[in-house]
Amino acid sequence: MTIIITAFERSPDGGKGLARDTRVRWALEEVGQPYEVRLVSFRAMKEPAHLALHPFGQIPTYEEGDLALFETGSIVFHIAERHAGLLPDNADARARAITWMFAALNTVEPPILELATARILEGDKPWSKERLPLVEDRVRHRLKQLSARLGSADWLDGGFSAGDLMMVSVLLRLKSSGILDGYPSLADYVARGEARPAYKRAFDAQLAVNTGKPPTG
Amino acid sequence: MTIIITAFERSPDGGKGLARDTRVRWALEEVGQPYEVRLVSFRAMKEPAHLALHPFGQIPTYEEGDLALFETGSIVFHIAERHAGLLPDNADARARAITWMFAALNTVEPPILELATARILEGDKPWSKERLPLVEDRVRHRLKQLSARLGSADWLDGGFSAGDLMMVSVLLRLKSSGILDGYPSLADYVARGEARPAYKRAFDAQLAVNTGKPPTG
Repeated sequence: MTIIITAFERSPDGGKGLARDTRVRWALEEVGQPYEVRLVSFRAMKEPAHLALHPFGQIPTYEEGDLALFETGSIVFHIAERHAGLLPDNADARARAITWMFAALNTVEPPILELATARILEGDKPWSKERLPLVEDRVRHRLKQLSARLGSADWLDGGFSAGDLMMVSVLLRLKSSGILDGYPSLADYVARGEARPAYKRAFDAQLAVNTGKPPTG
Repeated sequence: MTIIITAFERSPDGGKGLARDTRVRWALEEVGQPYEVRLVSFRAMKEPAHLALHPFGQIPTYEEGDLALFETGSIVFHIAERHAGLLPDNADARARAITWMFAALNTVEPPILELATARILEGDKPWSKERLPLVEDRVRHRLKQLSARLGSADWLDGGFSAGDLMMVSVLLRLKSSGILDGYPSLADYVARGEARPAYKRAFDAQLAVNTGKPPTG
């Protein structure tokens, strides 16, 4: 059955790979599943046809026959559950990999999104300059804890898993801020994720949409 | 195998049920699994023994034999996957219920947590009064979309699921703010969750910890 995902017609990041379809593309590339992409304009995202697929008017969505899903975490989990390569076979190790997916999305990403909001949506507010360090400190607090747990390991729990895919994707949002530089082991961890052939294919595919050029790979 | 979860020795909310152990207690009550609770002080949460269980120094954690998990979403999913009552049998319906778990934690909860941060951690800042309406608007935006999707249904997708358990738990954080009053169908949805016998048992159990009295049920 053909897998169809949605992505921005024009990503707000211009193709830096931060739009969430990259996470789904990456998961599909890791497990070797082909997929089609339907591009959605900002206007179409708020219209009934898209809201029927995604109640919060965002991308990505995932369609496969009669099944329609939204929410990146759920889509990546669905892919990981059905195809080998993203979750360990051992039941306990699998549960721990799923734990890291949730930790990436519910514990590490919220302060990072808050930082983006502070910079972009509230960047022109009178409180912006004084408030930004507070928000950055909340991000650093999480990075310090994450770095302590990762230690000198390559991945968060044994081999690369959907938990790492999600955590690396979340940390990639910080790349341009310079904050990751304070945590060399996390910067290396992100670089290991970016170096995976599946990530590169996913990145190139989203970049091609945003530059109008076909992927070079 | 005995299930052991951790909870605050003294919850910051004084027993209003907003600490995240309530979500795990609720899930365990829905599936009829007994559990033990180990209480953790704020000090102990930051010490190595607890950080080994929970790298971000929070509660709840979940231990069952050799398995140790953290992150509420992952714990509730683990319970839902292993015991009947929280996820539909049909594969597509199951994937949609999991979608709502992720949506609750990654799309609806972040602006609600930001509102809590704005009120509590930044309540004494010079920008607080001017900034608060912006943060509230972000919460309302999500509530409006969620309310539109729920419509006149009792639960988000067919029967009650782990997705509803998580969404109701997230919305409960808004109860004291009055914001939910603007969305009567969501207020009713939350009330339906609170009326479930399993929720009541979970609520009473966490209240008993915080008042020092045994549950009356």
